[in-house]
Amino acid sequence: MTTGSATVPAGDGDLAIGVDVGGTKVAAGVVDAQGTVLASARRPTPSHDPAEVADAIAALVAELRQRFTVHAVGVGAAGWIDNDRSTVLFAPNLAWRDEPLRDVLASRVGLPVVVENDANAMAWAEYRFGAGRGHNDLVCVTVGTGIGGGIVLDGRLHRGAFGIGAEMGHMQIVPDGYGCGCGNNGCWEQYASGRALVRAARAIAVESPEAALRMLRGRPADELSGPDVTAAAQDGDPAALACLEDVGGWLGQGLASLAAILDPGRFVVGGGVSDAGELLVGPARARFRASLSGRGHRPEADVVVATLGSAAGIVGAADLARL
Amino acid sequence: MTTGSATVPAGDGDLAIGVDVGGTKVAAGVVDAQGTVLASARRPTPSHDPAEVADAIAALVAELRQRFTVHAVGVGAAGWIDNDRSTVLFAPNLAWRDEPLRDVLASRVGLPVVVENDANAMAWAEYRFGAGRGHNDLVCVTVGTGIGGGIVLDGRLHRGAFGIGAEMGHMQIVPDGYGCGCGNNGCWEQYASGRALVRAARAIAVESPEAALRMLRGRPADELSGPDVTAAAQDGDPAALACLEDVGGWLGQGLASLAAILDPGRFVVGGGVSDAGELLVGPARARFRASLSGRGHRPEADVVVATLGSAAGIVGAADLARL
Repeated sequence: MTTGSATVPAGDGDLAIGVDVGGTKVAAGVVDAQGTVLASARRPTPSHDPAEVADAIAALVAELRQRFTVHAVGVGAAGWIDNDRSTVLFAPNLAWRDEPLRDVLASRVGLPVVVENDANAMAWAEYRFGAGRGHNDLVCVTVGTGIGGGIVLDGRLHRGAFGIGAEMGHMQIVPDGYGCGCGNNGCWEQYASGRALVRAARAIAVESPEAALRMLRGRPADELSGPDVTAAAQDGDPAALACLEDVGGWLGQGLASLAAILDPGRFVVGGGVSDAGELLVGPARARFRASLSGRGHRPEADVVVATLGSAAGIVGAADLARL
Repeated sequence: MTTGSATVPAGDGDLAIGVDVGGTKVAAGVVDAQGTVLASARRPTPSHDPAEVADAIAALVAELRQRFTVHAVGVGAAGWIDNDRSTVLFAPNLAWRDEPLRDVLASRVGLPVVVENDANAMAWAEYRFGAGRGHNDLVCVTVGTGIGGGIVLDGRLHRGAFGIGAEMGHMQIVPDGYGCGCGNNGCWEQYASGRALVRAARAIAVESPEAALRMLRGRPADELSGPDVTAAAQDGDPAALACLEDVGGWLGQGLASLAAILDPGRFVVGGGVSDAGELLVGPARARFRASLSGRGHRPEADVVVATLGSAAGIVGAADLARL
């Protein structure tokens, strides 16, 4: 599937392709220097075989290059990318281990390629073109099934000594808390993510089914999803609102810890769960302000919702490829 | 009191004075470009009146300048310093509130002055001349009564959007945990600091006085101090070792969270409690490795003891003034 204008704009010397590799689909787009997506295309993630994923990326790039002259390709992937942005060290959902994705792709497409952590790419997009614009010290938190993040300091993406920083979803906030796929217990993403939202809603559905009627809409509790909770909350359902308030509270608590460590000027909250907007971010902001170390004696960061939506990964990856 | 050589070295164009303002004493030193303290002097912190503290700093600077030609003065103070390094926003132990220390001092001494958070100055010293040398992504944790910290990223001190970052002692690690002077509960510094060490030791002394004999040395439990615990542990006392192991464990747990967020190449542990050396850092390192998110799939930072000791504050403040 390809969307967008088939007209190649004049003066397109600054076009790059951004690719967002997810567990279910690979999305790609042609992005200009203003962060506008001129055209996009996508395919299902073919399998968990790295070679087939590379095939899919190469095919999408070839498809988009039929209509646009591009100079670089940026790939955002959910995983740990080494510090020179060439190798996927570990990607839990893609079965990549020490995969030299940059060089594999560069030889396939004949263009400069950079590989970036997907949450870093999203953070960079929000910094350059979205809700973080103008904030040189910015923390983006991507609240999806888990929590990803990206950290911009002094106007630069901070990747860490080994390239695997900004995994703030795995700071421990509850000793001996819920188990996490990372091997630890009590990670922030077990309390302030889509997974936590669904856990809270299902618990209500099991314990007080009558309170969960509007979330369930006739289905069994184990089919409840995050968007069901958000939709019910947007209709004013008290149980769904309570779930978002709980998750938002944990979110704000973690943001207060991040403020103590990083002291950003702004937090941007993105990811699928942020579709709930102020129903999530309102409680997060309240808990953040109530939990900020030394509150009353310090300037406070603001907490806002991301504005670029699901295009952020493509836009950020393309922009990073152009730098 | 003045120490050090009275001989002015040839080619001293790069000398700066570093000042470390503590709650009980003000220490100052002449530092060369290699981080060597050529001479030092100190006075008791005269009172909590900001004007008298400025008097003491100016007097120490004047005293040292009788023998050395210096070009800048760096002051490290325990407090929140604004991002342009001029104003102490809040210094709990010095009663400073929005104190324009840089300009007050610059007009008193007639030299360029920078004001820096004391833990930032110590971190910078360890990065430039101590245990962190060569690590451009470095986190220093200063374990004293509380926990301070300094963050070096890409070879630059990260101060935050408002200048008050790296206060990692106030990340929350235990929901509804011990109360903290910062207004919150469950801060890291309530579990992994000198205060926590003394709390643990006193609890043993009250509950099992016979187990605490070597720490107590005949005194009542409420006179037990951190150095007592360290000294007993160095003599092999099991109760004291258990206290350091407990505190070290919490320390390592917090380092694992910081690694998830910041991914430094090295952690340096300084401050008074680090005088216990491996008796503290050994358990911290063990817990850190056992708690690292995604361990086995990632490179790991090492955790080492600071090497500059109590001079770090002076050395770092002087070096930052010279930059």
